[in-house]
Amino acid sequence: MKRSSRGTVDPFIVMDVMEAARRAEEAGRHIIHMEVGQPGTPAPAAAREALTAAMARGPLGYTVALGLPELRAGIAALYKTWYGVDLDPARVVVTSGSSGAFLLAFTALFDAGARVGLGEPGYPSYRQILRALSLSPVGIATSAANRLQPTPADLPDGLDGLIVASPGNPSGTMLGHDALSALIQTCAERGISFISDEIYHGLHYEGRAVSALEISDDVYVINSFSKYFSMTGWRIGWMVVPEDHIRTVERLAQNMFICPPHASQIAALAALDCTAELEANRAVYAENRRLMLDGLPKAGFTRIAPPDGAFYVYADVSELTHDSRALAAEILEKAGVAVTPGLDFDPHRGAGTLRFSYARATADIAEGLRRLTEFMARR
Amino acid sequence: MKRSSRGTVDPFIVMDVMEAARRAEEAGRHIIHMEVGQPGTPAPAAAREALTAAMARGPLGYTVALGLPELRAGIAALYKTWYGVDLDPARVVVTSGSSGAFLLAFTALFDAGARVGLGEPGYPSYRQILRALSLSPVGIATSAANRLQPTPADLPDGLDGLIVASPGNPSGTMLGHDALSALIQTCAERGISFISDEIYHGLHYEGRAVSALEISDDVYVINSFSKYFSMTGWRIGWMVVPEDHIRTVERLAQNMFICPPHASQIAALAALDCTAELEANRAVYAENRRLMLDGLPKAGFTRIAPPDGAFYVYADVSELTHDSRALAAEILEKAGVAVTPGLDFDPHRGAGTLRFSYARATADIAEGLRRLTEFMARR
Repeated sequence: MKRSSRGTVDPFIVMDVMEAARRAEEAGRHIIHMEVGQPGTPAPAAAREALTAAMARGPLGYTVALGLPELRAGIAALYKTWYGVDLDPARVVVTSGSSGAFLLAFTALFDAGARVGLGEPGYPSYRQILRALSLSPVGIATSAANRLQPTPADLPDGLDGLIVASPGNPSGTMLGHDALSALIQTCAERGISFISDEIYHGLHYEGRAVSALEISDDVYVINSFSKYFSMTGWRIGWMVVPEDHIRTVERLAQNMFICPPHASQIAALAALDCTAELEANRAVYAENRRLMLDGLPKAGFTRIAPPDGAFYVYADVSELTHDSRALAAEILEKAGVAVTPGLDFDPHRGAGTLRFSYARATADIAEGLRRLTEFMARR
Repeated sequence: MKRSSRGTVDPFIVMDVMEAARRAEEAGRHIIHMEVGQPGTPAPAAAREALTAAMARGPLGYTVALGLPELRAGIAALYKTWYGVDLDPARVVVTSGSSGAFLLAFTALFDAGARVGLGEPGYPSYRQILRALSLSPVGIATSAANRLQPTPADLPDGLDGLIVASPGNPSGTMLGHDALSALIQTCAERGISFISDEIYHGLHYEGRAVSALEISDDVYVINSFSKYFSMTGWRIGWMVVPEDHIRTVERLAQNMFICPPHASQIAALAALDCTAELEANRAVYAENRRLMLDGLPKAGFTRIAPPDGAFYVYADVSELTHDSRALAAEILEKAGVAVTPGLDFDPHRGAGTLRFSYARATADIAEGLRRLTEFMARR
């Protein structure tokens, strides 16, 4: 059988690093994982307990497509707690991870051929999901001066949509209220649908992140239980949509997903109340970040944008290499530290960048920095 | 913001029935649910226990995109047990329910505008998912003489793909080895990609269902833990793809889903060994089916195709009504039995059909039949 053109998406370059790391570990080497974008912590204890209790109570059949009403209400309440925003739970769509939210948002908003802008560097799957849905990703080069986030002046003509992530992946940089407002207003004026990826909200280290919902109701906001709530493998996230999009998204969700995983919805509902455990996780990231911002420049990685949130540091290593893939392979081989080549995030300039994740335990971060320092000194 | 054209999918008509049933129950009435297409039984006990144990062991982070290797091996082994087929586990793709499998299959196989055939009556979401992905569903009218399954002679010119379900939903009828072979061979000759929806396999009452994999390796086969394994809300399924499609599907899955729900994968792996419990469930369906095939004709629903599998009976009620939606509403109101109007499965002839589900407890089925008999006698 023939394969489609749109199914021909780029591989993740980091997969080669992960496979090489796995082989090294199999051969008995000890590897520090700074390539992985997920917490090392489990779902909160109370979330797991809630699921065990629910499994004993009765079948976990289909839920309604938009998710358990109490979970939608709980998520809406989070907007009051985090941002002081009153949000109608009817606008909350529980999804199969932020991945499910992207599939719903892109099909609800765009027809085949539509052009959707995204900042470079950025989350690689935006581009690939858009292509799989017969949409055209339009890369927008960002600058270090703008902390690797797009500005209104950067937006090319002819866009149908724009995706913005704050805090960003791989940069961890955030858009302040004014910068985010300017983007949203420009998009509204030019008829560009605005999608705000807020998956790293809750993980900030100085001021909190600004939600697009603080600025406008006419936006799509995508979030997830993966990062702050430490539930990556559970595949549970959410989306907030404008009121006049609810029915469209509901019908798409009924057909494309039936419902998000019921077990994960139950765990997520309980996770909303696990603030103490989750804030303890955040304190670990904050300490890891402190070590990174101190240790990376000392090791020789001096051109970094200090991250406002998430758990990544993006480093410009173009003085060291024009082949980030080869440098990552060298770091893995010689230092025993796995890092992500920037090419996954920026197909143009990523040959000169690396992403370091500090999502794991603090002892690992300290050891990783020690190894990186030694490696750079020898190099 | 504008909504897309492709996001404008049809509503499920059964949703109106379900909402009316919910209101009736809220008002204190007792309703028998013959509209719902899911088991009343929970996931097997050992599956739930395996998940509780896994949650205590450590974090359920992302798995690799194609699923846990041991789950893929377990599913491959099922093809030996059920059909005597040797299947390379590398060809097994674990998915977020059969819904996730359809999204992957359609994007891997078809570019925007491709024409994909599907038998009418059939599962309504095929049509809606295809449209959401900018593909053209091509309805193929089937006949009672062919037990509501398509034949090679029915296939119109210009198809890029064909989806076949055996046992079918809503009919429960199966394609025998020769009929399925003829379809697969015709598709191969005409360059039509063949997708076999085998979600009701395991739920048969006379002979077992034939898998497309017994006939060809150059097909996509989609299945799920929802029905036979009684795990609807867990959103866990699988797909078997030709060897030269594995990499394409893997990359799509990495980007579109990251991975299927980890918790559900663990439960599914244990469910593969729960044969005694699952066969006991099947015995209940078999008894329910016996009651239905006896009771429906006695009640006056005489034009039915005896189902070979699944847990539905599809009835031609065109002698009684030209508005199945109104008849379903009347049955709910007067008999207290919720059933599904055929319009969801066949936009053309479904105005004269109803689907009865017998997935629930036997006592419910017996009571439902009593009520239907009384209703028809009075009508």
